[in-house]
Amino acid sequence: MIRKKLKNATDYRESLKKYRLNLYAFGEKIEDVVEHRLFKPHVNAVAATYDLSNDLEFEDLANAKSHLTGESISRFNHIHQSREDLIKKVKMLRMLNQRTACCIQRCAGMDSANAAYSVTYEIDQKYGTEYHERFKKFLQEVQDENLVAIGAMTDPKGDRSRPPHQQADPDLYLHVVGERKDGIMVRGAKAHLTGVTSAHYVIVFPTSNMRAEDKEYAVCFAMPVDAPGMTYIFGRQTNDFRKMEEGDIDKGNAQYAMVGGECLAIFEDVFVPWNRVFMYKEYDFAGMFVERFAAAHRQNYGACKGGIADVLIGACACLAEYNGVATASHIRDKLVEMVHLTESLYSGSIACSQEGHCTSSGAWETDILLANCTKQNTTRMVYEIGRLAHDIAGGLLATLPSEKDYRHPQLGKYIDKYLKGVPHIPTEHRMRLFRLIEAITGGTAVVESMHGAGPPQTQRVFMLRQANLAHKIKLAKRIAGIKDE
Amino acid sequence: MIRKKLKNATDYRESLKKYRLNLYAFGEKIEDVVEHRLFKPHVNAVAATYDLSNDLEFEDLANAKSHLTGESISRFNHIHQSREDLIKKVKMLRMLNQRTACCIQRCAGMDSANAAYSVTYEIDQKYGTEYHERFKKFLQEVQDENLVAIGAMTDPKGDRSRPPHQQADPDLYLHVVGERKDGIMVRGAKAHLTGVTSAHYVIVFPTSNMRAEDKEYAVCFAMPVDAPGMTYIFGRQTNDFRKMEEGDIDKGNAQYAMVGGECLAIFEDVFVPWNRVFMYKEYDFAGMFVERFAAAHRQNYGACKGGIADVLIGACACLAEYNGVATASHIRDKLVEMVHLTESLYSGSIACSQEGHCTSSGAWETDILLANCTKQNTTRMVYEIGRLAHDIAGGLLATLPSEKDYRHPQLGKYIDKYLKGVPHIPTEHRMRLFRLIEAITGGTAVVESMHGAGPPQTQRVFMLRQANLAHKIKLAKRIAGIKDE
Amino acid sequence: MIRKKLKNATDYRESLKKYRLNLYAFGEKIEDVVEHRLFKPHVNAVAATYDLSNDLEFEDLANAKSHLTGESISRFNHIHQSREDLIKKVKMLRMLNQRTACCIQRCAGMDSANAAYSVTYEIDQKYGTEYHERFKKFLQEVQDENLVAIGAMTDPKGDRSRPPHQQADPDLYLHVVGERKDGIMVRGAKAHLTGVTSAHYVIVFPTSNMRAEDKEYAVCFAMPVDAPGMTYIFGRQTNDFRKMEEGDIDKGNAQYAMVGGECLAIFEDVFVPWNRVFMYKEYDFAGMFVERFAAAHRQNYGACKGGIADVLIGACACLAEYNGVATASHIRDKLVEMVHLTESLYSGSIACSQEGHCTSSGAWETDILLANCTKQNTTRMVYEIGRLAHDIAGGLLATLPSEKDYRHPQLGKYIDKYLKGVPHIPTEHRMRLFRLIEAITGGTAVVESMHGAGPPQTQRVFMLRQANLAHKIKLAKRIAGIKDE
Amino acid sequence: MIRKKLKNATDYRESLKKYRLNLYAFGEKIEDVVEHRLFKPHVNAVAATYDLSNDLEFEDLANAKSHLTGESISRFNHIHQSREDLIKKVKMLRMLNQRTACCIQRCAGMDSANAAYSVTYEIDQKYGTEYHERFKKFLQEVQDENLVAIGAMTDPKGDRSRPPHQQADPDLYLHVVGERKDGIMVRGAKAHLTGVTSAHYVIVFPTSNMRAEDKEYAVCFAMPVDAPGMTYIFGRQTNDFRKMEEGDIDKGNAQYAMVGGECLAIFEDVFVPWNRVFMYKEYDFAGMFVERFAAAHRQNYGACKGGIADVLIGACACLAEYNGVATASHIRDKLVEMVHLTESLYSGSIACSQEGHCTSSGAWETDILLANCTKQNTTRMVYEIGRLAHDIAGGLLATLPSEKDYRHPQLGKYIDKYLKGVPHIPTEHRMRLFRLIEAITGGTAVVESMHGAGPPQTQRVFMLRQANLAHKIKLAKRIAGIKDE
Repeated sequence: MIRKKLKNATDYRESLKKYRLNLYAFGEKIEDVVEHRLFKPHVNAVAATYDLSNDLEFEDLANAKSHLTGESISRFNHIHQSREDLIKKVKMLRMLNQRTACCIQRCAGMDSANAAYSVTYEIDQKYGTEYHERFKKFLQEVQDENLVAIGAMTDPKGDRSRPPHQQADPDLYLHVVGERKDGIMVRGAKAHLTGVTSAHYVIVFPTSNMRAEDKEYAVCFAMPVDAPGMTYIFGRQTNDFRKMEEGDIDKGNAQYAMVGGECLAIFEDVFVPWNRVFMYKEYDFAGMFVERFAAAHRQNYGACKGGIADVLIGACACLAEYNGVATASHIRDKLVEMVHLTESLYSGSIACSQEGHCTSSGAWETDILLANCTKQNTTRMVYEIGRLAHDIAGGLLATLPSEKDYRHPQLGKYIDKYLKGVPHIPTEHRMRLFRLIEAITGGTAVVESMHGAGPPQTQRVFMLRQANLAHKIKLAKRIAGIKDE
Repeated sequence: MIRKKLKNATDYRESLKKYRLNLYAFGEKIEDVVEHRLFKPHVNAVAATYDLSNDLEFEDLANAKSHLTGESISRFNHIHQSREDLIKKVKMLRMLNQRTACCIQRCAGMDSANAAYSVTYEIDQKYGTEYHERFKKFLQEVQDENLVAIGAMTDPKGDRSRPPHQQADPDLYLHVVGERKDGIMVRGAKAHLTGVTSAHYVIVFPTSNMRAEDKEYAVCFAMPVDAPGMTYIFGRQTNDFRKMEEGDIDKGNAQYAMVGGECLAIFEDVFVPWNRVFMYKEYDFAGMFVERFAAAHRQNYGACKGGIADVLIGACACLAEYNGVATASHIRDKLVEMVHLTESLYSGSIACSQEGHCTSSGAWETDILLANCTKQNTTRMVYEIGRLAHDIAGGLLATLPSEKDYRHPQLGKYIDKYLKGVPHIPTEHRMRLFRLIEAITGGTAVVESMHGAGPPQTQRVFMLRQANLAHKIKLAKRIAGIKDE
Repeated sequence: MIRKKLKNATDYRESLKKYRLNLYAFGEKIEDVVEHRLFKPHVNAVAATYDLSNDLEFEDLANAKSHLTGESISRFNHIHQSREDLIKKVKMLRMLNQRTACCIQRCAGMDSANAAYSVTYEIDQKYGTEYHERFKKFLQEVQDENLVAIGAMTDPKGDRSRPPHQQADPDLYLHVVGERKDGIMVRGAKAHLTGVTSAHYVIVFPTSNMRAEDKEYAVCFAMPVDAPGMTYIFGRQTNDFRKMEEGDIDKGNAQYAMVGGECLAIFEDVFVPWNRVFMYKEYDFAGMFVERFAAAHRQNYGACKGGIADVLIGACACLAEYNGVATASHIRDKLVEMVHLTESLYSGSIACSQEGHCTSSGAWETDILLANCTKQNTTRMVYEIGRLAHDIAGGLLATLPSEKDYRHPQLGKYIDKYLKGVPHIPTEHRMRLFRLIEAITGGTAVVESMHGAGPPQTQRVFMLRQANLAHKIKLAKRIAGIKDE
Repeated sequence: MIRKKLKNATDYRESLKKYRLNLYAFGEKIEDVVEHRLFKPHVNAVAATYDLSNDLEFEDLANAKSHLTGESISRFNHIHQSREDLIKKVKMLRMLNQRTACCIQRCAGMDSANAAYSVTYEIDQKYGTEYHERFKKFLQEVQDENLVAIGAMTDPKGDRSRPPHQQADPDLYLHVVGERKDGIMVRGAKAHLTGVTSAHYVIVFPTSNMRAEDKEYAVCFAMPVDAPGMTYIFGRQTNDFRKMEEGDIDKGNAQYAMVGGECLAIFEDVFVPWNRVFMYKEYDFAGMFVERFAAAHRQNYGACKGGIADVLIGACACLAEYNGVATASHIRDKLVEMVHLTESLYSGSIACSQEGHCTSSGAWETDILLANCTKQNTTRMVYEIGRLAHDIAGGLLATLPSEKDYRHPQLGKYIDKYLKGVPHIPTEHRMRLFRLIEAITGGTAVVESMHGAGPPQTQRVFMLRQANLAHKIKLAKRIAGIKDE
């Protein structure tokens, strides 16, 4: 299958049609993600990243110069070459989320690629393997073709109190079940695949530290999304059926979606050729993979969720105007608080980028402690921002009639008359804002801020590991005048 | 229309069928709330209150002795006669919510009746009117027939910066548009009518303080839900379409709903006979109505939301077991925090009840300061409890495939295999818990904790009014040794 | 030594002079706690409780009818006979703290006595001992003589990871070191003795659960504060030296103190006669002692800290007036928040009292879960209230010149001129408020809210134990439709 | 008076002796700040900044290349020439505070100088004045001589509801009271002068926006600390008298202080020659002065308070070890939380620096929105960090006997025996940590985090102004599909 370089959103949409995704939703096989109402908004969000590459205003953020070819490529397919690259990454994310109010699905792939780039380099250094070269070739193809590669990390995990090899069912972590001359066979599943229905490639890698007994589970590889043996089951989202309805008000964000369109991916003895295998049995590097990917991914959350929060703040400020309360001191104070929290989130993304460092492979990595701190704040502040939005919006947020009622010849007049705010603003404007606020703050959308890039406790484990308490104890003893003998 | 005393849930359901509700949802006329999938769960929740009256274990909470007739009546139709009644009220609410995890819809009616009882008494004292006797007759009918009367308070309000008489459209607050020999004609709308689709009667009263210019808006009355001229439009709820689907997993709480099934009610020149009019033009009592109703209603929130939180805590504790992490210290700590917040909420409801006082009418009223404080805590702690639930539950909360996928012959096997937790627990059990947690913590359900019984700022206004800062200043000056001349 | 019934604060002060306390502060022996500047404020706070018994307005709160003699006694020496007693207890505490803004030191004794009363009863029931009768005799003396008995619980604990019998030094938990015909000899220490320098008696009891190996440590007894072998070392408090200075401004609360005047008590082979021994070797009841005392003591914190918070709110509201900002919306909002938190604390104390129950001894006990929840809130909300006070007060809180500067002939004029707020209020008034706010919110005073009645983690342990997660899991399964086979 | 370039801490201390400061504390004239126990710790903290300049490890942070002379100068006297300078500034602050756990007093001067540098430039641009050249000459002297210049901003403000010219006493804001051929005479006062007792120069500037009527108040100038007419009154600090005591345990931080040693400064008709006047009557630039200084100063707080928090975390981690609880999960979790909050604070300082921009004068300025957000977080998180420290430390934090008791021949033995933690650690070590934690978390020290660089509400005003709500509204409308006509 030969693919030409995708120049824009149209090319991108066209390219997706060539894939034969074995995808299900609500028990039905999905044939065309580009047109199907459930999937189109997710595709649109990724398409927005293609548009951005051609937008003069933002092209410096959206594109980067490949260190492999010197060509201009999508920043989503770039290996960060400097501190400035790390900062541009998060600026791009905030800006894109301001424009879509939706997960744009490509960052996990970018972060997987950056992790794979540096980890394969270090595996090779230790074991004399050739993973890094393989990965560079794969990466160059993705860059040249301007493809979307996403990441797949989370194993189902079964009984969380047991490691992979002690699970009752050995497949509860993805593992190699057969080795052939030309490659390996893998089996298992990965959960929460963000963006797979809008993508061309998947980069698969381990979910946790591993020990020697788990070495069949220590595997990293890339594959096209429609590799034989793959099945994808689309996850339910809050209010997902609204996407199937007529009309665009009740969707809240009709053009885009809210989250990444996560799927459960089943790998039923999927074959991967050697040139796409980037780790196999080097279990002592599984932890490094997790740490590098997690840090890179956690770096993003203050920026992407910050971008969505910007839209939410705007919606609340606008609704307050429509309600006639924009100058009420308590409303202004709540808007300020939303701004404060949003910028606190964003400060984390900027700071961990600024404090980044270069790995031995030449790829730049964010500061691990600050990136984990950023994500941890997201698991709290996004909820508080949503709570404040609910406060400002008012009770209609929970009791607004449906768009169908509004379009109904008789009921529509009632709604128009009685749900009006200040006289000069159409009632429909108010309705649209309620639905947008509802979409951003309800259910799935906020859970994504909690568990995307790992649950809060994983960040705390990393923070403790990075905190250097021994150094802080030394500082304290010095000030307290404690002299150890 | 003659109605017999409703003895149990069956009688109750039967009774609803006699009403000809002019009700719409999704642009369609609803004919039978008892059987329609959207409305049945709401009816079930109210039905549970009828069952409770016959439950030996709880009959003391569920029933009370009418001070009008000496008969045993539903506590929901009772005028509180003592501090103990106030406490039993909140205990009944927590217990019912533990059993339904759902708004049981009858408390606003109970609180309206108690407010109307004492306010009509005081209007009569001042103006020599006869509202109190009228109200007592109405109340006795409701008690004797064992009916469900709900409350209707919130006007649409239009431009929130203007009082009723200054709105561009005079109907944006409900008002009297005509007076006849036998009664009055009212026009306008009321928003957020909790439980109206499960009710027999509506008690309508003002939404805010009023001045002389607003006196046409100062009106209180009762009417059957199917009074001519009424139109109800059902509000959208988070995931409402799941109620229309087959299966019971994805609903989360299949038997009951989550919120009160709020409607927008349109009053198009509705006639109310004089014997059902309980205030008319006494604008100086509008504020007292609001204060009394609000305090009574805010008293509840620590109990009813506490009851739902109990179910949520149980769901999280159970899911943690199924995930194999029940003994992890961070999980236990989060469960303790959920318990702590829940009991803090509940303490508010108990405390404001205990500190209640008797009004001049003989009806007991909760402590206003503490009741407002209780509701204020609900607008924060319920959100934090939900956040902790998301944390404990894990990312599948946002990516779980649908029940249809699970019932699919091929996909079902995958889901069964890969979404299993500890080996001895069926995967379906886990799925049910994810869906229950999703239902309790997403969207509409939590907004109800924010705006039910009034938005947070209204509680702060009441708290400031009740805080007696002057007394506190005196205490401080005494300690500080400040002597005013 | 014969003591007559103490009728008032004067009698009380007189009575203290008869004790020969072996007390040290700053390395010096203290001879007269009634007059010494460091101790007088603490004595004054206890004296206020004596005054209250004679205050017509509050006598119902301050006094109770002894169930032993039928006489009117101080409520601090009362065994709670009803739910109403529990509620009056916390109302008395809030009221006293509103008047002293200071720990009044007697509640730990009251709580110790109530715990001892019911636990001795249960020990006797199991072991046929006669502790309960002994304790009643002791209690009757305290009631009749109207004495102050305080509680002593916290052992020094040494290495917290080891139980008493495994400590390197066996004395790190107080224990019996000898048995005589007429009594026992005890050795060890107790930390944080609140109010011992204002008291007549000490009730000593264990600090934690114990096992058979620790049985020498399972001991409870009472003794006069000046028992031979006792040494008390006064703990440092924040700004303690200001009590030694001239003037009354910089003290903040010149008449009273802030905390309980805690001491470290050393028991060097102290003899206790059998009639004052209330537990000895019944290690299986040590845990019950802790639980009962802790619950009773934690019940108080929402009330006593609430009372102090009332003074603090008053100080802030007053200072805002003096600063000319009383009507600024953000100032009002912060005052409301302080009120909200204060009433939330207080609601806990009321609720756990209301939900109390009768023990087998006839003594009423607070609800354990809600009491622990109350104390837990204190460890957070008192800090937040203090933080808000700092916010409202302004930076002078940290940079105000000393009273000596203010009294200085030349500097005083500058201070008077330049630290004036609104024109008609004397500068000194402002200074007094800054110092009062400083005193209430700084250092020792807030630590008392954290660790008094046990550190936060102990409350969480109790909450988990009391939470009945199994019941909550049952509720959740029922709603979720999970049927266990 | 000629001063030579100060090369190190010794030179610096020597230089201070030449100043004749008219300084009072506790009503007494202070003659020698270098040796006086109250002031020495403050001088030591500044001296540490001199030492740092000669420390090979940190010289790149401590020093910068003057853009005026090309010479290596103290970074505290530097005008930021790049984004990197802004970042090095905050890194220097964190590092210094890790080493002193104390306000190092020089940042307000640095921030004043940077504000004056750019504002004088812009005044000159508009009005053709020559302030900028004057300021550069003054600055070069400070750089060459390596002096300490501090900032003086806060006027006493009297009635906060009135502008300067409407105060009852016109001196309540500092103003020009006379003009001479060679300069101006100023009168008034400035509050909260940080570091003036350790400094050579003061830069004075306005405290708020001004209007034409206030133009006599729109004045900026520099003067030596011992200018004739000046009086300084030292503010009381929490536990200030411990600095006067013997011993070094109870001080907590014996070598340094905690806060900046703030003074109230009285300007009694002080003469300022024209060459030191940098603004006079250009009232329309007063607001810019405030904004620039405030942003620059707020930039620091995540770094300097972060540095102190590092010491506090170390103290708590160390004390947990000494208590035998270092591995308890709740202790570790609280330490992680402290780290998380500290790094969140620091992220703010890094982010606002990274997002800085160049002013028209060539001086770089921090991002105003993010800097205000950083300071706002300090007003919350520093309190929460302190609260967690109290939690971890335990109750002895509030009841520990004094050092004098510990040094007492008999009492010392008791303390040594009974306050021991794990066996192999001297009791004194524990005591030192309790005192250090007490010093960092009590009273004045935390108030500094609240009000330093302006009270929280001022940051909210700036945040609202910088939030660009209009842009956010536009984003929201676009997503919601709202088309304005």
